[in-house]
Amino acid sequence: MKQMMIMALTMCCMTTAQERGIINNSTSPNSKLRSIDLDQVRWTGGFWKQKFDLVKDVTIPEMWTYFNDGGNSHWTNFRLAAGLAEGRWSGRSWHDGDFYKWLEAVAHVYIVTHDSVLDHQMDDVIAVIAKAQQPDGYISTQIILEKRKRFENIHHHELYNMGHLMTAACIHHRATGKTNFLDIARKTGDYLYETFKDRKPELAHFGFNPSNIMGAMELYRTTGERKYLDLANIFIDMRGSRPAGSRHYGLGGTDQTQDRVPLRKETEAVGHAVTATYLYCGAADAYMETGDTTLLAALHRIWSDVARRKLYLHGGVGPLTRGLSIRNDDVHEAFADPYLLPNRKCYCETCSNIGNAMWNWRMLNITTEARYADVMERVFYNSGISGLALDGDHFFYSNVLRRLSSNVPLLRSDTPERWKHRAGYCCPPQLARTIAKMHGFAYSTSENGLWIHLYGSNELKTKLSDGTAVKLIQETDYPWDGDVKITLEPARQTTFTLWLRIPNWATEATIKINGSPIKSDIKPGTYVTLKRTWTTGDTVELNLPMHVKLIQANPLVEELRGQVAVMRGPLVYCLESIDLPDNVNVMDVRLPRNIHLQPRFDKQLLGGVVVLEGKAVAGVDSDWSGEPFDSPVLYKDYTPTDPRLVRLRLIPYYAWANRGAGQMTVWMPLD
Amino acid sequence: MKQMMIMALTMCCMTTAQERGIINNSTSPNSKLRSIDLDQVRWTGGFWKQKFDLVKDVTIPEMWTYFNDGGNSHWTNFRLAAGLAEGRWSGRSWHDGDFYKWLEAVAHVYIVTHDSVLDHQMDDVIAVIAKAQQPDGYISTQIILEKRKRFENIHHHELYNMGHLMTAACIHHRATGKTNFLDIARKTGDYLYETFKDRKPELAHFGFNPSNIMGAMELYRTTGERKYLDLANIFIDMRGSRPAGSRHYGLGGTDQTQDRVPLRKETEAVGHAVTATYLYCGAADAYMETGDTTLLAALHRIWSDVARRKLYLHGGVGPLTRGLSIRNDDVHEAFADPYLLPNRKCYCETCSNIGNAMWNWRMLNITTEARYADVMERVFYNSGISGLALDGDHFFYSNVLRRLSSNVPLLRSDTPERWKHRAGYCCPPQLARTIAKMHGFAYSTSENGLWIHLYGSNELKTKLSDGTAVKLIQETDYPWDGDVKITLEPARQTTFTLWLRIPNWATEATIKINGSPIKSDIKPGTYVTLKRTWTTGDTVELNLPMHVKLIQANPLVEELRGQVAVMRGPLVYCLESIDLPDNVNVMDVRLPRNIHLQPRFDKQLLGGVVVLEGKAVAGVDSDWSGEPFDSPVLYKDYTPTDPRLVRLRLIPYYAWANRGAGQMTVWMPLD
Repeated sequence: MKQMMIMALTMCCMTTAQERGIINNSTSPNSKLRSIDLDQVRWTGGFWKQKFDLVKDVTIPEMWTYFNDGGNSHWTNFRLAAGLAEGRWSGRSWHDGDFYKWLEAVAHVYIVTHDSVLDHQMDDVIAVIAKAQQPDGYISTQIILEKRKRFENIHHHELYNMGHLMTAACIHHRATGKTNFLDIARKTGDYLYETFKDRKPELAHFGFNPSNIMGAMELYRTTGERKYLDLANIFIDMRGSRPAGSRHYGLGGTDQTQDRVPLRKETEAVGHAVTATYLYCGAADAYMETGDTTLLAALHRIWSDVARRKLYLHGGVGPLTRGLSIRNDDVHEAFADPYLLPNRKCYCETCSNIGNAMWNWRMLNITTEARYADVMERVFYNSGISGLALDGDHFFYSNVLRRLSSNVPLLRSDTPERWKHRAGYCCPPQLARTIAKMHGFAYSTSENGLWIHLYGSNELKTKLSDGTAVKLIQETDYPWDGDVKITLEPARQTTFTLWLRIPNWATEATIKINGSPIKSDIKPGTYVTLKRTWTTGDTVELNLPMHVKLIQANPLVEELRGQVAVMRGPLVYCLESIDLPDNVNVMDVRLPRNIHLQPRFDKQLLGGVVVLEGKAVAGVDSDWSGEPFDSPVLYKDYTPTDPRLVRLRLIPYYAWANRGAGQMTVWMPLD
Repeated sequence: MKQMMIMALTMCCMTTAQERGIINNSTSPNSKLRSIDLDQVRWTGGFWKQKFDLVKDVTIPEMWTYFNDGGNSHWTNFRLAAGLAEGRWSGRSWHDGDFYKWLEAVAHVYIVTHDSVLDHQMDDVIAVIAKAQQPDGYISTQIILEKRKRFENIHHHELYNMGHLMTAACIHHRATGKTNFLDIARKTGDYLYETFKDRKPELAHFGFNPSNIMGAMELYRTTGERKYLDLANIFIDMRGSRPAGSRHYGLGGTDQTQDRVPLRKETEAVGHAVTATYLYCGAADAYMETGDTTLLAALHRIWSDVARRKLYLHGGVGPLTRGLSIRNDDVHEAFADPYLLPNRKCYCETCSNIGNAMWNWRMLNITTEARYADVMERVFYNSGISGLALDGDHFFYSNVLRRLSSNVPLLRSDTPERWKHRAGYCCPPQLARTIAKMHGFAYSTSENGLWIHLYGSNELKTKLSDGTAVKLIQETDYPWDGDVKITLEPARQTTFTLWLRIPNWATEATIKINGSPIKSDIKPGTYVTLKRTWTTGDTVELNLPMHVKLIQANPLVEELRGQVAVMRGPLVYCLESIDLPDNVNVMDVRLPRNIHLQPRFDKQLLGGVVVLEGKAVAGVDSDWSGEPFDSPVLYKDYTPTDPRLVRLRLIPYYAWANRGAGQMTVWMPLD
């Protein structure tokens, strides 16, 4: 009976899809920028088209195969909870949420492809989810199947699961126009509102992995129902409201869960880096709707703390793995002290790095400030995609900046090569949904303006705020080349502003309009304002010279002292042992201060990458017999030896560990 | 009545002092070496004579003045508890223990000086302590005066206090032959035995700052009473016996208190570094008496972990300060993860560094292995004395290897210059007692053998195991010069072995006996065996060439990557900003790989030190505008600039921060 009703609803609600951006901030009063509708842009070639196709053709279908594997529980648990199969719940408590992330990725792909197979697949899945949902709207398969008490233990991840349900349902609604999933989400949102509206003290510590805030915000934006906004704000307000009592993880307010200090009073980024960035995203969403400046002020303080003191070069965050600070279960996968940025034992979980990008995306929309786009792009081309193998089907949790041994497991989740399946499977669907919607991060609109954040070959068809339809075509080999040709095709001659992002690494950028150079002062780390009356066929040629750059860190970062990293454009490069002569250790290599590194596009290598080639110094004075872990001493006399030159080849960091297990480093000592 | 009895005891027990070494292992069955009696050796000049006199003439009397200051509580608390004054207890719970450490220092000085003023001063103090002691033997002034429940909270430091009482009383007995203090200690030991003999579970976590183990061991050795040995073993056994339950500091077995894993099963150094090294000392003492190889095996494992992965170049241990691993109260002043050795934010408390030396001293006596003497010497000339200002009256807790700003307080206990008075006052009396007994670490004896561990001008009068009296005279300017002349004056011509320590840094050492070079292969990091028939007037001339050496660290220590430190002999050197031109920042200085550093003794500087002078490179490419803490960015482009040569002057690390607040670094990047 219930299933029939849902099917009826599904059929009668095939209205026009209300496509919106990846954050549905088209009506948010406190956001200066609005994200574009998700079906208005698509990659036409190049870097992100390649990644999108990989996710569409390999990652998403392989994941579904995995979820359907009898040995794996993600999908099985829903079928069990729906009464469609018999057996016991198994897996990890957060698997529901990860399944919803996969479903969100499918919806994003559907927006681009309109592949009816995907549509039907989603409907089938949603029908089962509907059956699994409890009559009062609650849904979390572990609690249902194991008949556990709800909201008894924060580790059960109930709000993480329901948060991702709400987000995925909103995306599905935008993708298809259907309400079959959105109705489930509404029921869940209603249930959560009833449960949390009284702000019961015993619930204060729940929602510690706060996709629930973003989920409730998205549901508010999609439905317009005020109570979902209230729900999101309740979740924000409850955190840090009861810091007293036991300091234990899960039992009281701890820094690990961003639950010791109320967010509005927080001054720094602390604790688990995924839950932190998700919280900051949710708070930014809330600010966009409410204009609560106490939230925005806190986000500014925390952002500054991260940017100045806690950000890895590759855009990753959260160095502490379990064990970095002795055998301490209370703090892990977390932000560390200022300037503490170890390379080898950095955690930098794929999910937290992407969370960092999602947060910066929101800050960019709120403020229009290019510094947020710089961080976002840094993540997307580096630590945000290094978790995905080039085959589309193997994954890293942690994204270290150095690996010296394939024999010594240092991080629980750190394997020499990417893995295919793992019980903890949060990062793979996170990668899938992020890459599937990457085009949504490329543009925003504002009052009579169009903003370009990311460069890549794509076509945009959107409407200006005055209603004029505009087509925009980007042609570029970015990030391999800094030439970007933009062709504008407004439906009629019209005056508006095109805002072009000049990345913070792009010194000496030039712009031509219809072939004529513009003379304005083009500063890195800004948006250039091109306000004029545009006619169909107008071209903008942007050149962002991709100089190879050596990068140094603030000397307060002790792990990076006396070393440099290499970047070209938005890409961080690294040295892998496979690219060195056999008898040279990655740790032996030093970069001459005046090193010349020549870029060369190698079509055959790693799916096609620009490598950087030059001559480095290999000094055996750092010889620790190959395996420093076995060294019986910590200190040795240093005796300089005649250095010899070795051929150096650096590859983009994101593509590392795709040629077998080996050594790798991003930072190298100067010579 | 009670007081009269004590006075009577004091008077009737003026027997011959039973002088013994700083660990009274003269009858320990499982120690290969025996420490020499404390009155058998004294410094005759040079480095340690200077330090001893400073402690005797300044540190100890100034400390007594401080303890008598009405505003300070150490001594006042005893007078209150003895009923000699009225008022409330104040201070920190561990102040009793620190007062006993001062008293131990006085006793050590008395052994050398036989100054009757000190003797009377000690008697006066001991009489008050006797009155403060409870009838059942318990004594801890806070608990007595505040009428608190005994052994309710490990932070009350009751066993720390009573542990130091027992040790100080044993030393006082050896110094004076009196039993007035020893009788107090016996009563305390008896009380503790009665309290702990049943190993009550609720007491399992007490004694977390375990001077009580060493104290009970010393009381056993001094009195011969078996129950004190049993008591020490009970303390060892109880730790880690109840790890379950709450992980909270103080409430359950945690790594922070070395109380999660039983010591016999431990594989690494964890937790608070003072309590750790004290525990390892106590366990080594217990092994010497019991031969329990499960204890020794654990100590070997832990030592290897420290030496290979957790030891600072200056001999310090315990980098974690509160806050290194986010705002985490559970782990602080503690050992960190392997290879995590930050320079700027290292804690390396003076007490833990000295605890490390004390532990290595015991391992040396157990095994005769020179590697333990190397660590011990490294501490004594560097991190073990850097806590004491050259004026003898100002102190550091933490012994950082780098300071970049005098404005930014990073460690609670880290001030730009040493402080005179502080509420937490554990390190000053620790320094005083250690320097006052330093001569006791210079020698050991074995079956028909005499071992020299430390070099310095001194005279030793001891007896060989066959009863032959031997006088030994060392003449040397060590550590400024590596020439050591040893003159032997046995009472009769006799055959015995002289074991000369060749430090691990001493390459190319040479030895002459009566002017003739010996041809044996002299390896650094060993003891050279000189077995012969010795006659009065025989001389041994040892030369330990003091080459200036650049030192590198295992590349797994990320904080030291691409950098070197400078050592000469046992001394670690450092660069202070006061020795640089005004416009050169300490962080700008790089050392050429082939740098030549010339030693020069400067009599006027810092009490007379050998400075190392040469030419270094100053590169402004590391310019972060002087104050890196204010930098709005974490990363910058690196652009090499023409380096310029600057005059470099390095000073011994122990003498840093005696010329005002400034910048300092031990490790410097190579150029």
